[in-house]
Amino acid sequence: MTWNPEMEVVFHPRVVAMVGVSAQATRNSGRGFGGGNFINSFEQLNFTGRIHPVNPKATEIMGRKAYPRVSDIPEPVDLVVVSVPAQALPDVLEDCIIANARNIHVFTAGFEETGLPERIELGHRVREIAVRGDLRIIGPNCMGLYVPASGVGTFDGLPKESGPVAFVTQSGGHSNWFTHNGPNYGVYFSKSISFGNAYVLDSTDYLEYLADDPETRIICMYLEGVKDGRKLLRQVKEINRTKPVILWKAGLTQAGSRAVASHTASLAGEEAIWRGFFAQTGAVAVSSLEEMAEAAMTFQCVKPPEGNRVAVMVLGGGTSVAAADICSREGLEVPHLTDETQAELRKFIPPAGSSIRNPLDTGLVFRDIELLQREVSLVAADPNIDMLILRPHMDMINSAGSEQVDKVVDYLSDFCKGNEYGKTAVLVFHSFANESWERELRAKLERELPKKGVPVYTSLAAASRTLARLYRYHRVQRELSAATS
Amino acid sequence: MTWNPEMEVVFHPRVVAMVGVSAQATRNSGRGFGGGNFINSFEQLNFTGRIHPVNPKATEIMGRKAYPRVSDIPEPVDLVVVSVPAQALPDVLEDCIIANARNIHVFTAGFEETGLPERIELGHRVREIAVRGDLRIIGPNCMGLYVPASGVGTFDGLPKESGPVAFVTQSGGHSNWFTHNGPNYGVYFSKSISFGNAYVLDSTDYLEYLADDPETRIICMYLEGVKDGRKLLRQVKEINRTKPVILWKAGLTQAGSRAVASHTASLAGEEAIWRGFFAQTGAVAVSSLEEMAEAAMTFQCVKPPEGNRVAVMVLGGGTSVAAADICSREGLEVPHLTDETQAELRKFIPPAGSSIRNPLDTGLVFRDIELLQREVSLVAADPNIDMLILRPHMDMINSAGSEQVDKVVDYLSDFCKGNEYGKTAVLVFHSFANESWERELRAKLERELPKKGVPVYTSLAAASRTLARLYRYHRVQRELSAATS
Repeated sequence: MTWNPEMEVVFHPRVVAMVGVSAQATRNSGRGFGGGNFINSFEQLNFTGRIHPVNPKATEIMGRKAYPRVSDIPEPVDLVVVSVPAQALPDVLEDCIIANARNIHVFTAGFEETGLPERIELGHRVREIAVRGDLRIIGPNCMGLYVPASGVGTFDGLPKESGPVAFVTQSGGHSNWFTHNGPNYGVYFSKSISFGNAYVLDSTDYLEYLADDPETRIICMYLEGVKDGRKLLRQVKEINRTKPVILWKAGLTQAGSRAVASHTASLAGEEAIWRGFFAQTGAVAVSSLEEMAEAAMTFQCVKPPEGNRVAVMVLGGGTSVAAADICSREGLEVPHLTDETQAELRKFIPPAGSSIRNPLDTGLVFRDIELLQREVSLVAADPNIDMLILRPHMDMINSAGSEQVDKVVDYLSDFCKGNEYGKTAVLVFHSFANESWERELRAKLERELPKKGVPVYTSLAAASRTLARLYRYHRVQRELSAATS
Repeated sequence: MTWNPEMEVVFHPRVVAMVGVSAQATRNSGRGFGGGNFINSFEQLNFTGRIHPVNPKATEIMGRKAYPRVSDIPEPVDLVVVSVPAQALPDVLEDCIIANARNIHVFTAGFEETGLPERIELGHRVREIAVRGDLRIIGPNCMGLYVPASGVGTFDGLPKESGPVAFVTQSGGHSNWFTHNGPNYGVYFSKSISFGNAYVLDSTDYLEYLADDPETRIICMYLEGVKDGRKLLRQVKEINRTKPVILWKAGLTQAGSRAVASHTASLAGEEAIWRGFFAQTGAVAVSSLEEMAEAAMTFQCVKPPEGNRVAVMVLGGGTSVAAADICSREGLEVPHLTDETQAELRKFIPPAGSSIRNPLDTGLVFRDIELLQREVSLVAADPNIDMLILRPHMDMINSAGSEQVDKVVDYLSDFCKGNEYGKTAVLVFHSFANESWERELRAKLERELPKKGVPVYTSLAAASRTLARLYRYHRVQRELSAATS
C-alpha cells in the first residue's frame, strides 16, 4: 500500500466532518476536548476549508448547517473527526464506509486500555469495521492532527506559525504540551500527530510520509509500543541520516510498562531491545518532553561541533567544578586550554579568585564587554576547543549597570548564532541573587532568544547533555558516511 | 583541642576588624566582594556589635574610625575579616598574633590554587604563621560566615530570617546561591560557612560545632576535598542519626578533579571511596545545589514515608507513563491501588480517557473540588500506598473558573502539610498551556508555598528523587536503630 497521496489529503483536508458535536456547542465554550472545541481550534488556526458538524439532533451548530450522518453531507469528505461515546463509534464508522469517507481521526477513547472485557470486545468490533472498510483510522484514543499550515488542530490557543519539526506521539497530552510550549524553545511544527491506540495507522505509517515531507526537517517521536519493530528500525535508520529522529521510548520500567497498558494498551517492549534499537539506528534518545524540546531546538539552530571538547565559562569556583563534573558525565571532554591561550588570558585576568584553565572561572569579565569579547574570542580560537558553553551571571553583569545587560546579551547571542571561529556556542543564564527583576529577565530571555535562533538552556546539565547528543549524532553520521563511501 | 567555646565566639562576634577596606568605600557601593561590601552586609543584617575598619591610609571609613593595624584597635577583637591582596596577608596575620586576634576569616585568594610557584610558596608562609600563632583561619579563598541571628554576612541582600539548616561549603559561590535562593525552597539558615582552601579549620571542625548546635537540625555540605577522611566518616555517621547530613561531593570525574585543584587546591578523591562513604554513613548524596535545596526543604517539612510505595495523580496518559518510569528509576514502587479503592474510584470516574490503577490519570477531577477531595482521600487511605505525588494542572483547574485555583491550591496545600491518613504528600504543579498568567502563578506558588511548609517541586523527577532520598534515609536509620537495640 502506498500511503503518501492519501496521507497528503489527511494532512491538508478541505472538507471536514465533525461527528459528535453538542447541539449547544458555542465558540470559546471553555477549554475542553472534542466536539465544538475541535471546531474552535480549526477556526483559531484560520482553516479555510469547510467544516460540517454531524449531529442527528441539531440543524445548525456554531453557525454551520448540521447533518444527521456523515453520509448526508453533500460533498466528498476529506477528514472525519469523531468524538462520540465509545459505544456509538461502530455505527459512525459503518456510515463513513457508506459515505466513502476513509480518513478518520477517532478521538473517542475507552477500549482495551480500560481493561474491561466489554470494552476490549468493542475494540475488536471497531478494528473489524476498519479493516473491512479500508478505513485510515488515526487513533482511537488520541488528539489527532495539528497542521498549522492547513489550519488543522484540536487544542485551544495553538501557535499559527509553522516550523520544520514534526512530532509523532502516542500521547495526546504530550502533543498538547509540546505544541504549546515548543515556541519557548524556538520550536514550531510542520505536523504533530497524536495517534493513540494505533488500530490502523501506526508510527511507521506516519514516518513513511514524514520521510519525504519537504516541510519536515526534524522528527520527534514519543512511543509507548510499536506493531512492526523491524520496519521501524529500518525506517528510522534510513530517515535519521537526513532528518534527525529524536525518540522518547517510554514504559521501559516495569511500572511504566503497566502504565502503558492502561494508556494505549501497547506492548512496551524490553529495555535491552530498545538499547539495541538506538545503537543500530543512531536515533537520538531522550527521556522527557523537556529533553525532546531542547534537542529539537539544538538540532534546528546549533552548528554541529567538530569534536566533543567543550570550554565552559562560568562565575564561581564551585560552579566550575560542577560544570566539569556535569560535562564529563554527559560524555564531553573538558580539556585545558593551550598554554598560548592561557598566557593571553593571563594578560588581563588576575590569578587570584579565578581560573583560566577550563572551566573558566572568570565571571568578572561579564562586567566589561571588551574583556568579555577578548576572552570569548581567545577561547573560541583555541585549537583544543570544539564548543563553548557560556554562562553569564545576570547579577554580575547588572552590577556594571543595567545597560550592560543588553550589551552582553546581544554580543553573546550574535556569537552563538555564528562566529568567525566556526565554533559551536550556546548560552545558559544564571544568577546568585534572588531578585524578581533578575528572575523575570532570565525567564524572558530563556523563552524569547530561542525564537531568534539563539540556543539558551535553563541549566548547565541541559546544555551539556544536549550538546553531547548533537555531537554523537553527527559523529555516527560521519562514521556511516565513511563506511559507505 | 576543644573547638566549641572558641567557635561560639566565631559565630557570635561582638567586635569585628575589617582589614582591607578601601578608604573610598561607601554604603551600597554596588555589588562586589570584600572590604566595604562586607561592612554593608553586616549592616544590612543589623549587626549590633562594633565594626572597626583597618586601613593604614584612612582615618575614617563609612562613618567609622579606621585603624592602621588590627593591633591598634583598643579592645579585644572577636573576628578579623581580611580582604587584602595575597602578598599582604602574612603581615596582617603577624599583626593578628600581636593583637591576640585569633579568629580570622581570610577572603583573600591567590595561593596554590593558581598553580603558580611563587603563590604556592606564599601559601606555605601563611600556613606556617597560622600554626605558629595558633590562628583559627577560615579560608583562605572563601566567603566566610553567614549567621543571620548574629548579623554576620558577606553578601548583599541576604535574608534576615534564621532557620534550622546549616551549610558547610568549600565554594563561596554555592554559599551565595544557597543563602539567597534557599527561601524559594522554604530553607533558612542557622549558619552558612564558606571555608575555601581550609588551611586550618576544615569541614570536620565545623561539623564538630554543628553537631551540638541547638540552632541546627539539618546539615548541608559541599565538599571538594577533606584532610581527615576517617574523622569525617566517623562524624557524619554519628551526626546523621539525629541531624540529616545532605552532602554534595564534587570533583569525582577526572575533569572535575582537575577543576578542584584550580579552585581550592584540594584532593578530590576517588568515586569508589566516596560511594563507600555514603554507604557507611547513610548521608544523603546529592549532586547539585538544586537537589540540595530540594532535599533540605523535604527533610525540613515532609513527613517520612513508612515505605517506598507511591501513588501519583496526573493529567494525561503519556504523563502517567512518564511518572511511572521516573518514580521507578528513582527507586520508588508504583503499585496498583487495591480493588476496593479502584471500585470506589470507578463510582465517579468514567473508564474512557482515564486510568485509576496508578499512576492515576484522572486530571478532570481537578475541575471539581469535591471529586478531588474524594479521590485524594480514597488514595491516601489505600493500604498499598505510603506517599502521594499530586500534580494538578493549572490550565485544567482554571478552566473551571479562576476561583477554583485558590480552592484547589488551599485544599492540596493543607493536605500535604498533614492529613488524617498520616500519609506523606507533596505537590508538583504543571500545565499543558503556555500562558503568562499560568507561568507566573506557577512560579509564584513554587516559590511561596514552601515558605509555608508546603513541599512543592518543579518537576516530577525532583519530587520522586527527593522522596526516595527521604525514604532511604529513614529506612537506614530504622535499620541502625534495630541493629543497636
